[in-house]
Amino acid sequence: MDLKSIEQTLTTFSEKRDWDKFHSPKNLAIALSVEASELLEIFQWLTEEQSQKLSQEQIQHTEEEIADIVIYVLNLCRKLNIDLEQAVLKKIDLNATKYPAK
Amino acid sequence: MDLKSIEQTLTTFSEKRDWDKFHSPKNLAIALSVEASELLEIFQWLTEEQSQKLSQEQIQHTEEEIADIVIYVLNLCRKLNIDLEQAVLKKIDLNATKYPAK
Amino acid sequence: MDLKSIEQTLTTFSEKRDWDKFHSPKNLAIALSVEASELLEIFQWLTEEQSQKLSQEQIQHTEEEIADIVIYVLNLCRKLNIDLEQAVLKKIDLNATKYPAK
Amino acid sequence: MDLKSIEQTLTTFSEKRDWDKFHSPKNLAIALSVEASELLEIFQWLTEEQSQKLSQEQIQHTEEEIADIVIYVLNLCRKLNIDLEQAVLKKIDLNATKYPAK
Repeated sequence: MDLKSIEQTLTTFSEKRDWDKFHSPKNLAIALSVEASELLEIFQWLTEEQSQKLSQEQIQHTEEEIADIVIYVLNLCRKLNIDLEQAVLKKIDLNATKYPAK
Repeated sequence: MDLKSIEQTLTTFSEKRDWDKFHSPKNLAIALSVEASELLEIFQWLTEEQSQKLSQEQIQHTEEEIADIVIYVLNLCRKLNIDLEQAVLKKIDLNATKYPAK
Repeated sequence: MDLKSIEQTLTTFSEKRDWDKFHSPKNLAIALSVEASELLEIFQWLTEEQSQKLSQEQIQHTEEEIADIVIYVLNLCRKLNIDLEQAVLKKIDLNATKYPAK
Repeated sequence: MDLKSIEQTLTTFSEKRDWDKFHSPKNLAIALSVEASELLEIFQWLTEEQSQKLSQEQIQHTEEEIADIVIYVLNLCRKLNIDLEQAVLKKIDLNATKYPAK
């Protein structure tokens, strides 16, 4: 994923719509959490087994909600100067120490 | 971000810990939503203005929570064969149509 | 609030619709969290100040989301034999110890 | 549940701690959503079946999180002059119309 290029697209997108005034880190964290719940809503009454056999429509809905989540993640990283790739790689290392393999 | 390589790392990580049995799409969506709330918790009593001037410690905490969110996003994409980059680019196009620039 | 009477109404409601099979404590906790996000969505792009001056329509929307939350709370208490009033009073005492008044 | 008396206790509690400045409706909605996720976290890796057989410790943890949720619900109702009992009864009626019994 070419993060730099996508972040640039999102910056231009917000600027053209004058949305930056709404996009405080606090508001972006709220929006991200609301989108994560919209994703969860898809699965809420499914059994775990059913959640492994989604219909094409459910997959597409899931894709859209996941994309919304990642768009807010990228907006938040941009606002706070967070290097997402570094953050993810660092956390994977941290988890490897915290939860050693058997 | 080299998504393929990170997804491969996460696959190996889960396999070595025998976590795959917990990682139904339903459970991953729950975990993602719980992590999104842990991120939100950092901002919950801050004003929007304060959220723009985080301390180094708050930034680091934010980085860790964002990384957790993205790790669950990648696990979910892997389980459901979702191409994250395509999903994000498609959603940006969709948003551009839904919210035309002034 | 006559909790016993409302809980009884909710029990009959679920039974008549054969919803009990969906209402595992896990699923009720998911539903509650999804409803809490729908409440939060009302406030997501408002400033704190604007959130203090809601329109009649926003108040009504807020009332409906809060009611959904409390309905899932009551369903969960019923399933787990939790006495809600006792739980709330106990937590207020706990908070008073944890956060002593200045 | 004697809502009026509990709401009065909560008002005094916030006043004594000078917390009212943090308790805008927006912030209370965030806090409520964060608490709902803390409740969900208890169930996140349990199967639906396991969620029906909680340990005494898990029940107690659940009670505390539910109490936190209801405390924020009551604070929000107080701030917005919402009559919780009326809101719940009204929503049950609405649901009965929306989802007619078979």
